[in-house]
Amino acid sequence: MTKSFPIAALAALSLFSTSSSALAQASAAQAAGRAKPSPLAPSEIVAAAPKGAWVQIPASDLLVMELAPDAKGKPRRVVIQLMPAPFSQGWIGNIRKLAGAHWWDGTSINRVQDNYVVQWGDGNADDPAKAKPLPAGLAEVPESEYTTDDRTVVIPFGKEPIFEGRKHALVSFGENRDAYAVTVGFLDGWPIAYGGGGRLVGSTTETNAWPIHCYGMVGVGRDLPPNTGTGAELYVVIGHAPRHLDRNIALVGRVIEGIENLSSLPRGTLGLGFYATPEERTPILSIRLGTEVQDLPAYEYLSTESVSFAKYADARANRRDDFFIQPAGGADICNIPVPVRRAQ
Amino acid sequence: MTKSFPIAALAALSLFSTSSSALAQASAAQAAGRAKPSPLAPSEIVAAAPKGAWVQIPASDLLVMELAPDAKGKPRRVVIQLMPAPFSQGWIGNIRKLAGAHWWDGTSINRVQDNYVVQWGDGNADDPAKAKPLPAGLAEVPESEYTTDDRTVVIPFGKEPIFEGRKHALVSFGENRDAYAVTVGFLDGWPIAYGGGGRLVGSTTETNAWPIHCYGMVGVGRDLPPNTGTGAELYVVIGHAPRHLDRNIALVGRVIEGIENLSSLPRGTLGLGFYATPEERTPILSIRLGTEVQDLPAYEYLSTESVSFAKYADARANRRDDFFIQPAGGADICNIPVPVRRAQ
Repeated sequence: MTKSFPIAALAALSLFSTSSSALAQASAAQAAGRAKPSPLAPSEIVAAAPKGAWVQIPASDLLVMELAPDAKGKPRRVVIQLMPAPFSQGWIGNIRKLAGAHWWDGTSINRVQDNYVVQWGDGNADDPAKAKPLPAGLAEVPESEYTTDDRTVVIPFGKEPIFEGRKHALVSFGENRDAYAVTVGFLDGWPIAYGGGGRLVGSTTETNAWPIHCYGMVGVGRDLPPNTGTGAELYVVIGHAPRHLDRNIALVGRVIEGIENLSSLPRGTLGLGFYATPEERTPILSIRLGTEVQDLPAYEYLSTESVSFAKYADARANRRDDFFIQPAGGADICNIPVPVRRAQ
Repeated sequence: MTKSFPIAALAALSLFSTSSSALAQASAAQAAGRAKPSPLAPSEIVAAAPKGAWVQIPASDLLVMELAPDAKGKPRRVVIQLMPAPFSQGWIGNIRKLAGAHWWDGTSINRVQDNYVVQWGDGNADDPAKAKPLPAGLAEVPESEYTTDDRTVVIPFGKEPIFEGRKHALVSFGENRDAYAVTVGFLDGWPIAYGGGGRLVGSTTETNAWPIHCYGMVGVGRDLPPNTGTGAELYVVIGHAPRHLDRNIALVGRVIEGIENLSSLPRGTLGLGFYATPEERTPILSIRLGTEVQDLPAYEYLSTESVSFAKYADARANRRDDFFIQPAGGADICNIPVPVRRAQ
């Protein structure tokens, strides 16, 4: 089969990628004196990033989900990174309480909709007689917190490269044309939108900012507005970024390892991908904060304010490695996934 | 659990969606004299489209893949629609020959990479001693055919609504901001880009047009350039649209039914998602042109030049149904999947 294609779009994200050996080959080509070595692929730029460009993720910001083993007895773990301030703090406080109370233990994956989401929580939540009681003290978070107008996080958009140590900067690619926002970029390692969509709507102004529904992002299921959800029902995006959900629902984090344990589950056959029978649901053994998990490795992400990230993002927008004949000249924000790996 | 969320992004595409009952509820609300019924959701607009807005797909443009049954003995069929002229004609001619020769029978799914592609073909193609010989008469297609400059298909971009019967029109949404092309739209039922990316590259001009790597699109695996692939190795997108592949590889069609039989397969554990052992591959029993399949239903797509499609696309870009509090004001071209269903 044709192993050279399609290239590994997400090799940089893979904990088991071949990027190191690919990099070694590139170096060998240079050492051998070939006139024009292939420009580095994005995964090779990430592999070559200096140690100082990586930011360790505190264990207290991790959520570890253990699913029941698969049909062959293989354990299935999913690791989630929670978002930092100022985004979604009310819901994230609730999620910390739910995890601390071990509330999700014995709940299940209840919904898998192709090219959309995997959703988990209490499979009996709709039946008052059977619903699992929530822990006391969960906050009711207002809709206004889907976005933030905290001006301390908003930095004017610019096309300059970003350098190490600059805080809260927005990284730009090409003309940065986005169908959903005035501009988009990265803030402290997260994909963030600023300002309104193709036409400005309601009270949204350029100083509003909100997180983006990219592949792997985790959000809070809710009922009809003004309900905003507690955080007990969570979902992860497993398809093309459903950006129309931005500003309509709370995003609280992203899956950084083991998403294949969710994205490859059988699709539900009822409307919206819900399973037709309880037997089809995948049991959740436990969900814990990282600080409660003994064997948890450390994780780190590539600083979105580093030179390495700027080069990586530029290469994602303009592939120049051997496979490509036509660099795109731009990139969708969700096609520039922030590299995350086990700490090295 | 919270059944009302997340809403069904692709309900319009689902052959088993709940859109009819949702529509019935909306009508009931109107009949009951409620002052302000909820605006129709995209799936409801599609369900209400008149018969004349649907275009039947010729069986000769369908490709039917039968995988080995799953672990429970359930048959697994995938139906693919091939692209019309002027796009990708050389490769599509090859695919018709390969299907006519029953060449894929006994081949397999060899690669499943999360958030990227599922790829199939001859699992021994890299081993000259074991590779399956290709049928005679396959064309070698030049790279220039990744795009077309056939001016008869290029219509100036405009913001006017599109009306029934207008051919080759481009449908516009909001300001139509796209990171990869001067503009994007729909042509005869397919998502098409026009012109260069955020910056124009090489010889690309506004009169170039090419198909877009949205979720579910099918393309031709290839080796390093100038190889362009024969069509014997095919892949389907199962993640966020990898638009950097546009203009670098041939797109030949899209999955219109059964994509869950591919997207939920176990991910491969080798680099690029290849399976580590032949036993992990899913056998392909057969791939046939639709004209050779006796029990094949007829399929139809919603004309992208119909009033109904314009309303559907507008609703995708501006969700006003009860769940939403903030319409996006725009939409990514790949978030406006062209509705396809069994003919009614």
